[in-house]
Amino acid sequence: MKKILNNPYSYVDELLEGLVAAHPEYYRQIGAGGRVIARAGGAKPGKVGIVTGGGSGHLPVFTGYVGPGLLDACAIGDVFASPSVEQMADAIRVANGGAGVLRLYGNYGGDIMNFDMAGDMVEMEDIRTTTVLVTDDVASAPPAEASKRRGVAGMVYAFKIAGAAAEAGLDLDAVTAVAEAAAGACRTVGVALTPCVVPQAGKPTFSIGETEMEIGMGIHGEPGVRVGPLLPADAIADEMLDLLFADRKVEKGERLSVMVNSLGATPPEELYILYRRVKARIEAEGGSIVMPLVGRYATSMEMVGVSFTLCRLDPQLESYLRAPASCAFWSV
Amino acid sequence: MKKILNNPYSYVDELLEGLVAAHPEYYRQIGAGGRVIARAGGAKPGKVGIVTGGGSGHLPVFTGYVGPGLLDACAIGDVFASPSVEQMADAIRVANGGAGVLRLYGNYGGDIMNFDMAGDMVEMEDIRTTTVLVTDDVASAPPAEASKRRGVAGMVYAFKIAGAAAEAGLDLDAVTAVAEAAAGACRTVGVALTPCVVPQAGKPTFSIGETEMEIGMGIHGEPGVRVGPLLPADAIADEMLDLLFADRKVEKGERLSVMVNSLGATPPEELYILYRRVKARIEAEGGSIVMPLVGRYATSMEMVGVSFTLCRLDPQLESYLRAPASCAFWSV
Repeated sequence: MKKILNNPYSYVDELLEGLVAAHPEYYRQIGAGGRVIARAGGAKPGKVGIVTGGGSGHLPVFTGYVGPGLLDACAIGDVFASPSVEQMADAIRVANGGAGVLRLYGNYGGDIMNFDMAGDMVEMEDIRTTTVLVTDDVASAPPAEASKRRGVAGMVYAFKIAGAAAEAGLDLDAVTAVAEAAAGACRTVGVALTPCVVPQAGKPTFSIGETEMEIGMGIHGEPGVRVGPLLPADAIADEMLDLLFADRKVEKGERLSVMVNSLGATPPEELYILYRRVKARIEAEGGSIVMPLVGRYATSMEMVGVSFTLCRLDPQLESYLRAPASCAFWSV
Repeated sequence: MKKILNNPYSYVDELLEGLVAAHPEYYRQIGAGGRVIARAGGAKPGKVGIVTGGGSGHLPVFTGYVGPGLLDACAIGDVFASPSVEQMADAIRVANGGAGVLRLYGNYGGDIMNFDMAGDMVEMEDIRTTTVLVTDDVASAPPAEASKRRGVAGMVYAFKIAGAAAEAGLDLDAVTAVAEAAAGACRTVGVALTPCVVPQAGKPTFSIGETEMEIGMGIHGEPGVRVGPLLPADAIADEMLDLLFADRKVEKGERLSVMVNSLGATPPEELYILYRRVKARIEAEGGSIVMPLVGRYATSMEMVGVSFTLCRLDPQLESYLRAPASCAFWSV
């Protein structure tokens, strides 16, 4: 887990500087300390704005997904730390095209507290806001307490689908309803084989034995559901899918998108080995896969591991998922 | 360096199965053992075909770059091993739209021997072929012996630029000349912080001390030019750029594309930290960067490290670089 960096305390500022320098056609850095990334083109008058925010260390999540058909702005915290209230308020302001702003982000306490306060601040400036929390990590709480679940890779589907609805001209309540439906359609489970190193800490966030894996671990190293010996790819896929299917059955004839996501260091070769099995298992349940996403969509820097997300589609969600969108990390 | 796989001897076949299952709109598996990936749409009548080939373990290189505006087919070997003559001949046959086929690949002995024999085989079937070797790794031989250099990430530029020329309808000799110009425009240097594990070997390909890095190392672990303590990001960038500038000066007013490429596990956050410095140094030389590529374009599975490629552009190369192209890993 060797890292290439300068001063660990400049890590986030330097990476944002590089991101914007490399992709000025997508990203623009604004706000106090440059900790808000907004679309290069500015807010679209009359379009509902969508903002997100959260800690750094998960590229392309969060800020990579700012772009046409996706997000309007993102507030950026230090690695694995919430952005400030002021940064979130700045993100909301810059995303506002006069039609209100949806706050769409993962279910983490610090982010909620700050985004709520930011919403109160901008309300006094006559910017109407709504909130949708992504809670897709099935390993983080049982079904009866699904609202306590953490948000992980499922937020990529929520960004994409809600982004397309906003681009299509829906109003704030309608975009919010689509985002709720997209977030509700997603279920994710992860497996970690190694931790990652937070630059300012300089050491791994947790430890996993040399021959072990942890099923259900969170993207910041939150405890999973089972630690055990590293299994073959198909057995890992089966265990992860069993958890997902137990949480919500794949129905016969169901159409769904599947994300096989690297948490960072796991290479695409291994993702494709897993995808074979995922596809076979879903098809055996009678489901059919549309627009599979195999790659690095939501990461924890150099963590070794993967996550699977199932996103159950209805015709509306599917058409928004397939709508054009682009950012430096993904284009549809 | 934990890996998610089943039988190591099925690694390549399983990943190809998953690749084609995930992206049937781009890839089609043909040939003996399915070890040739061709464009889903088949050869375009009258278009010059472009084929490549080489060992697995470098995704998106090689086979990921099969797609419109890029390659027509790729012959795929085991991890870090050459494809067979027969596989290469099959790739040439499927890429042939009647206008001949360019073999465009990295300068490795085994690949050259087999591709030459494959060319002889298809010549008897009246398929005309030409060859361009990519030799961009400045650390692998001194300037006086530049033709002995290995081909690394620069081949991505060669694929893109030659692919656009073929798509534009140029004939075999003209596409070959454009590919020569593109390959000649590229210079690359890499730094490795860790080795990677070849599945069938089950252990690292080489070793680097816990606090060390190796400048100039090849993508299969070929020895570099200097082993030393791991330096800060800006110092690493400076040393790599000094090697590139010493090999060929960046001229005032020169336009060039730059690739800041992860060798696998190094995350985008670190690439952007490096990119700041690369941009500042190139601009200080009087060069200007167009279409920077920051991401994972040519890898060695889970190796930690990066490479920088400079691709000097003239108006023709720049217009081909900017022409539309798409595959599962990249779209322009």
